[in-house]
Amino acid sequence: MRVFVIGTGAMGTLFGARLLAAGHDVTFIDADSARVDAINHGGVSENGVAIPARAVLPGSASGVADLVIVFTKSMFTKVAVQQNLNLIGDTTSVLTLQNGLGNGECIAELVGPEKVLCGITNWPADLLGHGRIHVGGEGSVKLWSLDGSERPAIATVTSALNNAGLAATADVDVQRHVWEKVIFNAALNGVAALTRLTVGQIGAHGPSCDMAIGIVTEGIKIAKAVGIQADGKAVHANVEFAMLHHCDHKPSMLQDVEAGRPMEVDSIQGGLLAAARSSGVDAPLLNACASLLRGLNHASALRAGR
Amino acid sequence: MRVFVIGTGAMGTLFGARLLAAGHDVTFIDADSARVDAINHGGVSENGVAIPARAVLPGSASGVADLVIVFTKSMFTKVAVQQNLNLIGDTTSVLTLQNGLGNGECIAELVGPEKVLCGITNWPADLLGHGRIHVGGEGSVKLWSLDGSERPAIATVTSALNNAGLAATADVDVQRHVWEKVIFNAALNGVAALTRLTVGQIGAHGPSCDMAIGIVTEGIKIAKAVGIQADGKAVHANVEFAMLHHCDHKPSMLQDVEAGRPMEVDSIQGGLLAAARSSGVDAPLLNACASLLRGLNHASALRAGR
Repeated sequence: MRVFVIGTGAMGTLFGARLLAAGHDVTFIDADSARVDAINHGGVSENGVAIPARAVLPGSASGVADLVIVFTKSMFTKVAVQQNLNLIGDTTSVLTLQNGLGNGECIAELVGPEKVLCGITNWPADLLGHGRIHVGGEGSVKLWSLDGSERPAIATVTSALNNAGLAATADVDVQRHVWEKVIFNAALNGVAALTRLTVGQIGAHGPSCDMAIGIVTEGIKIAKAVGIQADGKAVHANVEFAMLHHCDHKPSMLQDVEAGRPMEVDSIQGGLLAAARSSGVDAPLLNACASLLRGLNHASALRAGR
Repeated sequence: MRVFVIGTGAMGTLFGARLLAAGHDVTFIDADSARVDAINHGGVSENGVAIPARAVLPGSASGVADLVIVFTKSMFTKVAVQQNLNLIGDTTSVLTLQNGLGNGECIAELVGPEKVLCGITNWPADLLGHGRIHVGGEGSVKLWSLDGSERPAIATVTSALNNAGLAATADVDVQRHVWEKVIFNAALNGVAALTRLTVGQIGAHGPSCDMAIGIVTEGIKIAKAVGIQADGKAVHANVEFAMLHHCDHKPSMLQDVEAGRPMEVDSIQGGLLAAARSSGVDAPLLNACASLLRGLNHASALRAGR
């Protein structure tokens, strides 16, 4: 397949590297020219094993894609797809496994809903440097079409990812998984970024733990109000598992705030709050958390002169 | 008068220095031996004008005080008074102008309510170094007895502070002013510490500004529920004034979090929340803010090995 991976963070690098190793024609696209140069010179490497790779700046790629995978942060989804619309033909599938709500819908507005596949992944990958990742264990992918209909592209893409060792499953229930992941992230990412506590430290600190659990409860209520049968017990159990077993983990929003990078508030907490408003659900903890995270983003943008 | 000032931050230094200059017998008490040494060697100075002064560690002072002024951070009120109980005789007044709720009550438990005077001050003083302050404008003091009764000590202490140029007024309505200040601080201090925005930046950023204003609204509701006729319009106007005119100001909690010092969450947001619980008022924004500030305090304590 002719594959384009937009965004070369840990996840984009992992998926691109594995598809490349499986024999696909992969091009990485990133807006950071230092990353593009590094990948063109040194390839991409997973756990120290490098493979030559090709990368370009947005808008510089050509040809029609079989598959475009969007792996930017969610605030860049729209511009990333807009800059690369020339790659998308009638038979192209555009896959998003990004965090947050609304990425699939955003892509569908630009390319048509029939081309969009969406889902989640939980591969534990960390970016060590441009094009270089460490993968600390096994993960998986769940995907389906955005509009819920059965399409041949679902099986084709699932099979390609599977053959590349990415453990993909076609799952008609993927929206529920997306929501459960968003709720998990809204709770732990938000509280970690605002308190600077790791996941285990949140679990061990009464008021912070109560705040995270309160956000999960609000999130489940919102999901049900918009017709998503999110499994509250499972999400609570996942949060408790993470607090006990991923103790030292710094969620991505905490890593972002420490590095002065913008956090994905709009698609995570903001996505849930938009659904809360549309369905008349009261979510004061999420609301407080989102406002404060937006304030943190604003402070970091002011410092950086953005 | 024989005066002991416990705590040599900006406010303790200001009040002690002015009472000293007005001819009172003033001893500073501080738990930080570097501060004590600096004051004994270099005196205290306001806007560059130094005056010799005496300072001791807690428990090292002797004699019976006419007036003890407690100017520690509120989490140290209890231990500070306990360590210096030997100074408190039958005719001693103990004055607190500290931030937050509960300082007067905490002191009253240790020395008896009849000895306690409480109030607020808004002198704009900054600590430049041990014993050295800059005062950027005029301020004032309002004080009354803790239990609300008229007592001779009110007039004596008011008059001494007034003669020392501290613009003090005896004001029977002082609890209302304490509450209005706590609500103001709960809103601006809390949001500033969590977002890292200055007061003006909070005002100019929709979600952060909404959060601060929402906390004021909750605070006023709590005050009224416990029988304090706080003036909501006045507090809202004060917050808006600060956003427009004290733009670059970093509230003390933001200064604390940047310096890794503990913040006065328990007496400010926590004091309001305790009153909310006792009176059955719902205060979700304050609750979220307090939980996250406690998390920040916890993270900073973990980093410092406290």
